[in-house]
Amino acid sequence: MHEFDLIKDYFSKLTKNNKSALNLNDDVFFDKSKELVISVDTYNEGIHFPNFDKASLVIKKILRASISDLICKGVAPKYYFISGSGNKKTFSRNKLKEIAKSLSEEQKKYDIQLCGGDTTFSNKLTFSITVIGFSNKIIFRNKAKINDDIYVTGDIGDSYIGLNIIKKKINLKKNQSSYFIDKYYKPDIQIKLVEELFKFSNSSIDISDGLFADLEKLINDQKVSYKIHLNNVPISKPMGKLLYDRKLKKIKTISNGDDYQILFTASKNKSRIIKAISKKLKIKITKIGEILSPSNKSSIIDEKGKILKVNNKGYLHHF
Amino acid sequence: MHEFDLIKDYFSKLTKNNKSALNLNDDVFFDKSKELVISVDTYNEGIHFPNFDKASLVIKKILRASISDLICKGVAPKYYFISGSGNKKTFSRNKLKEIAKSLSEEQKKYDIQLCGGDTTFSNKLTFSITVIGFSNKIIFRNKAKINDDIYVTGDIGDSYIGLNIIKKKINLKKNQSSYFIDKYYKPDIQIKLVEELFKFSNSSIDISDGLFADLEKLINDQKVSYKIHLNNVPISKPMGKLLYDRKLKKIKTISNGDDYQILFTASKNKSRIIKAISKKLKIKITKIGEILSPSNKSSIIDEKGKILKVNNKGYLHHF
Repeated sequence: MHEFDLIKDYFSKLTKNNKSALNLNDDVFFDKSKELVISVDTYNEGIHFPNFDKASLVIKKILRASISDLICKGVAPKYYFISGSGNKKTFSRNKLKEIAKSLSEEQKKYDIQLCGGDTTFSNKLTFSITVIGFSNKIIFRNKAKINDDIYVTGDIGDSYIGLNIIKKKINLKKNQSSYFIDKYYKPDIQIKLVEELFKFSNSSIDISDGLFADLEKLINDQKVSYKIHLNNVPISKPMGKLLYDRKLKKIKTISNGDDYQILFTASKNKSRIIKAISKKLKIKITKIGEILSPSNKSSIIDEKGKILKVNNKGYLHHF
Repeated sequence: MHEFDLIKDYFSKLTKNNKSALNLNDDVFFDKSKELVISVDTYNEGIHFPNFDKASLVIKKILRASISDLICKGVAPKYYFISGSGNKKTFSRNKLKEIAKSLSEEQKKYDIQLCGGDTTFSNKLTFSITVIGFSNKIIFRNKAKINDDIYVTGDIGDSYIGLNIIKKKINLKKNQSSYFIDKYYKPDIQIKLVEELFKFSNSSIDISDGLFADLEKLINDQKVSYKIHLNNVPISKPMGKLLYDRKLKKIKTISNGDDYQILFTASKNKSRIIKAISKKLKIKITKIGEILSPSNKSSIIDEKGKILKVNNKGYLHHF
């Protein structure tokens, strides 16, 4: 059973008097009257990051994953809280120094401020991050319109290759490796787009679970379908080379999440402004498909024009 | 090394441009301009609660512990987020039903609303709770004035006895046991006092770590001392009987935390209004000592008038 269904089944009724909770059906909590946007995420060693050997990089990764939730909604993150449960090794003086230095670098890069947190003892390492931003509007999920184009920022899949290199499931030369590992630990989240998104986007989500898994979430409650052209899904040059060299399938490398790029839909008449903003900000924004009426079946068109069954939904939190 | 020192050493510099974080030196984050008050807490199985057999009660306990942080600052909690990391057993259908029912009961009791959260897989059970309230003022720590009286709400120590019964370190008859266990899982937090506190309190904290540990935190940065009269520290009738029957030392049973009563200081001229509010709301509020000039040494006067050394600081989060 997926987290998605679990939450719906048992907890959405607890929010019935609380429209801001969006029926627990978005990445963020939004209180319009207080202009408050909040996201809470938990990260477990061995699940959301492989280990804590590279404390500084893990901290960057989980903090970026957390602020990405607000950025993809068009909201600049301002405050964050980080809580860690770990043991003496996790929170040794050296690790604490590393953590503090890493947080400090991210604070400067993304203009965010530490507001508090909690450190507790546990044999298992877990972090929980709460991110807060202020805005009187957000871009929701579930607002895609039929005939909208589907776009994605940046490149997809590098992070997944990085993770597999870290896990020693893929072996590459050092300079190739470090490119992908870097993308895993330090995803290029699109902070510069944060205020531009309202100019063109009808609905949006960040890709944390996988391109198709998150696309399904994006349109979750809506009576629409989608068509994605696999050929158009943007990948980096190193990824292109890797797919060629190793004869890997593109569909498999782009469906696994941890990308933290923004997946959004926009009316067709926005294509010009999207191109202009993409050029101005030097951010890759690529049209990868369309939202269609529900009379169609959702489909992925592969490189040879064949229709793939939509069953590779990437990573969802299973219980 | 204590959490207290750890945080100061490495993380308070990360908040240097952010006065709202109170230099990480209070239980809550307070942004006056946004009228926003936030607390984040983490709870680990085996540390902050013994196990998850009684899911419903554990949920009540950790939620009350979390909202207590705001209540003791004079702020009504409004929204909360709860994240759980656990395994299939933790988040079985039955447990989820229990959790949802328990949250629903607490929501009604304290007029709070679920806003979101996160469920992730982990072999170790951890919860993280973020609580949010709205207020343009809070009662701070570190604002005790010399000659202030020191007060505490409710009774102290019942929760500690309850925990020891659960851990099978104390054995009592069933009807006696259930009184104390109830106090452990369902502490009587003083929500009714939340708006009254501003009328008399100069500084406040909730007792989570232990009466003396939290008193030390309350006056942490201040050049003051305190004198506590052990005789005056309020205990329940069942506790009084237990101390007598088992020849237990009062100082040991009241120094261990999990009470979630409010410890506050107030000017001497507030004693009349405190009595009146105590009577009106039917909440026990007891004067237990005084804040003194730093030329005195902090002291606890025992039942026989002897001065106890202040070294029993109760439970702090050790690393």
